Amino acid sequence: MKVDGKYYRTIWLNESEPRLVSIIDQRFLPHRLVIVKLRSVEEIATAIRDMQVRGAGLIGATAAYGMYLATIDAGQKEHFEESLRKSAAMLKSSRPTAVNLEWAVEFQLAAILNGGSNEERTAIALRTAIRIADEDADHCRQIGLHGVRIIEEIADKKNGKTVNILTHCNAGWLAFVDYGSATAPIYEAFNRGIDLHVWVDETRPRNQGAGLTAWELLNQGIPHTVITDNAGGHLMQHGLVDLLITGADRVTRRGDAANKIGTYLKALAAHDNEIPFYVALPSSSFDWKIRDGLIEIPIELRNADEVKYVYGLCENEIKKVLITPEASPALNYGFDVTPARLITGLITERGICGASESEILNLYSEKSI
Amino acid sequence: MKVDGKYYRTIWLNESEPRLVSIIDQRFLPHRLVIVKLRSVEEIATAIRDMQVRGAGLIGATAAYGMYLATIDAGQKEHFEESLRKSAAMLKSSRPTAVNLEWAVEFQLAAILNGGSNEERTAIALRTAIRIADEDADHCRQIGLHGVRIIEEIADKKNGKTVNILTHCNAGWLAFVDYGSATAPIYEAFNRGIDLHVWVDETRPRNQGAGLTAWELLNQGIPHTVITDNAGGHLMQHGLVDLLITGADRVTRRGDAANKIGTYLKALAAHDNEIPFYVALPSSSFDWKIRDGLIEIPIELRNADEVKYVYGLCENEIKKVLITPEASPALNYGFDVTPARLITGLITERGICGASESEILNLYSEKSI
Repeated sequence: MKVDGKYYRTIWLNESEPRLVSIIDQRFLPHRLVIVKLRSVEEIATAIRDMQVRGAGLIGATAAYGMYLATIDAGQKEHFEESLRKSAAMLKSSRPTAVNLEWAVEFQLAAILNGGSNEERTAIALRTAIRIADEDADHCRQIGLHGVRIIEEIADKKNGKTVNILTHCNAGWLAFVDYGSATAPIYEAFNRGIDLHVWVDETRPRNQGAGLTAWELLNQGIPHTVITDNAGGHLMQHGLVDLLITGADRVTRRGDAANKIGTYLKALAAHDNEIPFYVALPSSSFDWKIRDGLIEIPIELRNADEVKYVYGLCENEIKKVLITPEASPALNYGFDVTPARLITGLITERGICGASESEILNLYSEKSI
Repeated sequence: MKVDGKYYRTIWLNESEPRLVSIIDQRFLPHRLVIVKLRSVEEIATAIRDMQVRGAGLIGATAAYGMYLATIDAGQKEHFEESLRKSAAMLKSSRPTAVNLEWAVEFQLAAILNGGSNEERTAIALRTAIRIADEDADHCRQIGLHGVRIIEEIADKKNGKTVNILTHCNAGWLAFVDYGSATAPIYEAFNRGIDLHVWVDETRPRNQGAGLTAWELLNQGIPHTVITDNAGGHLMQHGLVDLLITGADRVTRRGDAANKIGTYLKALAAHDNEIPFYVALPSSSFDWKIRDGLIEIPIELRNADEVKYVYGLCENEIKKVLITPEASPALNYGFDVTPARLITGLITERGICGASESEILNLYSEKSI
């Protein structure tokens, strides 16, 4: 997508620097566009853990590039496979909830170990990383093409009146390699000339909505308004929301969806007010091994300081302010699980389906047991 | 309640300065305890509008003291009643949602105009202000004595295991003259030795939970943990919440409750997880004239900058940080309405009742039409 009119992806290699992985350090957005070059699998793992990069798809793609750098590193060591597996384990433990991470690392591991010489393995790793990133972008584009039909239908019913869409957190292009999942239908609808407006949940504690989604939409020229996470229920009660679309970090076989903490509350309000609630995800975010999301999806417990301190721009610098008494403890779960019963449908790269095992398997029949 | 071991109310007159109304300027909490002395009805109205004081009960008591200062002012003018009515209108328009404000001003107006000489009227106004403040504190104390039974019952069922209570915003002693509404049963239960712990919603955008409720609980030595407004649903899904108690800014005849924005979302999650959700209020927060809270309660639309900027302690000063792109718009509704169907019960100074017109009128039979 575009930033100040220039085309970017969230992760890339420069041809002149094939051993450096470039990313946008998202911790400085929306205030500064900072490009960082990562030179080792350790730096990649740190970038994932510290959330220089975040979002289901981008975590996966970054880990895939991490495995590429790990292959270069392993090639200089005595025990290639042992070294590579260590790197894989380190990457997988850098964030626990997004299934794309595990998926990308395992996919790379299998592909790389298929190769013969170390050079061949490095070449495979690079090709696979690029393929995973390209596929991520392509899947998001497809999600946009399928999901736009939902927005078009609502626009038809509203006879040209503005379609109001609420989203939580950032499942935009910054969370993937390009386009985004929840935002892809919005970008597509906007390009088709549909009159729309996006309610952006600020998404405490890290404010990925206020900082990232708002910045994305602003750069694409899409009308939007930032609201507190508390506000969505009131807006829905008063007819000010026509549709909710969020992303997901992990979706089970039966359609339970782990997403940024607070998503469940919005799904409840959508249900209470009979407003459609869709979850957009590429197939890499499905966890085919599990059914009951509430029991089986591990929920990341992050540092309490993310609750106690808020980062933002102050006197032209990025600073943090303490919002609690110094001595009060805080707790910081990163995600919650929205049960399938509250989800109107899933928007995937293969099409739209209901949030149930049978309907999901209609699209992904190869995953039938 | 106590601050650093010293007893305070939220509003008082010093005997040596009978024409100065002292308040705690709550905008500096939890970082500094700042006492401000107000000397005119204009300063009182500003203190309410700018939220130096806030919370249903305290707004009412502050307005009552405002009418006392207005009476002194009116006594120096040619047209006493005209001047007093102007002050009353100014006070009533300083915040739109809390019904206590209107109630206190009208109560004072009627009482004052009953008096003969200006001196008599001033004396009546002072007595009435003190009476409204004392009654507010007493009603909160009664709410505590009734509400503690709910906590005791849960503690019995849990066989001494910690009772986890979630609250939203600040309906503590800082929102009233003393004790608080939602916190009064908590303080009473704690004093009776019940093992309890409070989940404190930070309550964006103004963070009255993180800043005020946490500070209150810390000063009383009550175990608590600050969470984001997004987190409560997840905690409820996982059995980590036994009871929710919030305050209310206005409750209709049939039990619809306007409270800080986001309360409705917590009520939905409590309902979905079959956890009791109680609203604690003194009778001054009932609006007997209306039934349908969603349609009839005016919801204050506050400055969008409260969403875009977050205040907190930074390098030992209170500063604000910008969390959105400068150019992104924001919207800031202050309250939402929780329909009676989601409320397990109301805790009032007269006892506990269900959230329905007939059950409310069982306690307040004089309000039957």
